[in-house]
Amino acid sequence: MAKTTIETVGEFNLIEHLSKTIECTQPSTVKGIGDDAAVVHYGQAETLVSTELLLEGIHFDLTYTPLKHLGYKAVVAGISDLYAMNATPRQILLAIGLSQRFHVEDLDELYAGVRTACARYGLDLVGGDTAPSMTGITIGITAIGEAPKDKIVYRSGGKKTDLLCLTGNLGAAYMGLQLLEREKRVFDGQPDKQPRLEGYEYILERYLKPEARKDIIDSLAAIDLKPTAMIDVSDGLASDTLHLCRQSQCGVCIYLERLPIAAETFRMADEIHIDAVTAALNGGDDYELLFTVPIDAYDTLRKELPQIDIIGHLCDAAEGACLITPDNQAIALRAQGWK
Amino acid sequence: MAKTTIETVGEFNLIEHLSKTIECTQPSTVKGIGDDAAVVHYGQAETLVSTELLLEGIHFDLTYTPLKHLGYKAVVAGISDLYAMNATPRQILLAIGLSQRFHVEDLDELYAGVRTACARYGLDLVGGDTAPSMTGITIGITAIGEAPKDKIVYRSGGKKTDLLCLTGNLGAAYMGLQLLEREKRVFDGQPDKQPRLEGYEYILERYLKPEARKDIIDSLAAIDLKPTAMIDVSDGLASDTLHLCRQSQCGVCIYLERLPIAAETFRMADEIHIDAVTAALNGGDDYELLFTVPIDAYDTLRKELPQIDIIGHLCDAAEGACLITPDNQAIALRAQGWK
Repeated sequence: MAKTTIETVGEFNLIEHLSKTIECTQPSTVKGIGDDAAVVHYGQAETLVSTELLLEGIHFDLTYTPLKHLGYKAVVAGISDLYAMNATPRQILLAIGLSQRFHVEDLDELYAGVRTACARYGLDLVGGDTAPSMTGITIGITAIGEAPKDKIVYRSGGKKTDLLCLTGNLGAAYMGLQLLEREKRVFDGQPDKQPRLEGYEYILERYLKPEARKDIIDSLAAIDLKPTAMIDVSDGLASDTLHLCRQSQCGVCIYLERLPIAAETFRMADEIHIDAVTAALNGGDDYELLFTVPIDAYDTLRKELPQIDIIGHLCDAAEGACLITPDNQAIALRAQGWK
Repeated sequence: MAKTTIETVGEFNLIEHLSKTIECTQPSTVKGIGDDAAVVHYGQAETLVSTELLLEGIHFDLTYTPLKHLGYKAVVAGISDLYAMNATPRQILLAIGLSQRFHVEDLDELYAGVRTACARYGLDLVGGDTAPSMTGITIGITAIGEAPKDKIVYRSGGKKTDLLCLTGNLGAAYMGLQLLEREKRVFDGQPDKQPRLEGYEYILERYLKPEARKDIIDSLAAIDLKPTAMIDVSDGLASDTLHLCRQSQCGVCIYLERLPIAAETFRMADEIHIDAVTAALNGGDDYELLFTVPIDAYDTLRKELPQIDIIGHLCDAAEGACLITPDNQAIALRAQGWK
């Protein structure tokens, strides 16, 4: 069936078409889509806002990223920053730039993913912007949320001897991406070949449909344990740990053998001769939470949230940021550069 | 002098380099740049948020747009939406995607423009995102502001017989753009030729360095006149009037001879054989405010704010949206399509 060009529909009707499937259910949403700005009201709580760009060719490749997944992932990327402040995201704004190769049906797919994520995380899509673009698709995602003043966790609150804690595992999304890139290269050479993806469902899902760690924020609140500092791991553990340390004016020791890495991540890494630990340190797209707690929270954490890994501890800034190998060698922790 | 590549500086130091010139002065800013999200607190007022994308090749052409002007204009485009809600912008977030052809010095220029706009409008730059891009420069601007609940003006509050009012004049930015495009074509053919821009300073400034109408919002507040509906004119008067009418469930009559058009706009239009009224209706980039007031506010408006033009009035939805020509013919008002 022929697809509908955005030109024939017109921006006017396009926005109406896209908005009609959008419903606002959050009590804090005063005004959603359809005006110059969204209006929200959180009463005495603080308002938190973060924004992020997702650019085609850099953050995603539509050869193997379904638009529905892209929409979902954009929302997750946006709200992950708010969870990392121990806040609750409530609303999102979505700005989209689209080149002529995209049609109304493509936008419907993207929005389907956005809606699914909104339903899963209890978010209202309250506004945005749709504009033509010269090349590809550009997504700007803005997340708005709230937190009581005394619950907000900054990157800067870490103290030396605090335990460094990590949710989930690392490097899986990166290895999922490597698999997709490999199969894309194979497909480019032999278009009749089917991609071989079986047995790697987990790492593919970690890349294509990541989740934000709302569950952990809820669990920490339930046991009344407030981290001293927190950041989401989206650029790779190395880079994000260094951000936390710099803001907290601390050094850090991370024990390499404690880095949580999934079996599938190891298997894929082996298969394509990449070091799994390097993927864990620099891979990115993990959307896990890295946080610190006072050392006397150790027992509580172990008992109540045994799924969280304690991968190291903060130390004096003068000691720097180190990775400790299993044979007790210290290696300087470095962030990967601008790619 | 050789420019500094972003790669050699690294994202880490780049953000630190860019942030060190940023100072937060708004009392409502709780946390600015340097964490996962910005934190603001407006107390009992409502929070307003809008977001917009500016894409190279669509929204701007760097051949004739200095990066400093681009930074300034991005801020104006972002906050204009908040003034259009009768709100006060307080903070902005800036997300930038940059291809390899841009250097640290280019970003400095862009930020210089952003800082100038922030100082002029009383804004804090509280966060954002800097990412590599495949092609050109992409800017995502998010504006955050506040307004007491009873002061917010929506697009939907217009009633039939309300007067349709417009600030400033229309089509100037569009004609400035046409002039720049003409001189670019001349320059492409004869690179040694200097562009001829003299005598057109006003329309060039309207395109390259527009202002948001904070002054009008302040003036309306000073005489305690709250518009019934309001929108900013950024996509062209035709399109934005239709948005206001649709949301207010009204029709509209606009008197063509009342459209405010500057002398320079007429002169440029004549010179390049474009109809100035068409430029006024569909040009875009005006950043003026279009608003409605009850008919009994006529005397107050004429006396207190004589610089504001009353260009028509709302009417019953069944009467549709019409332009009335000087010889009293009615023409249907139509929005331009997706470009």
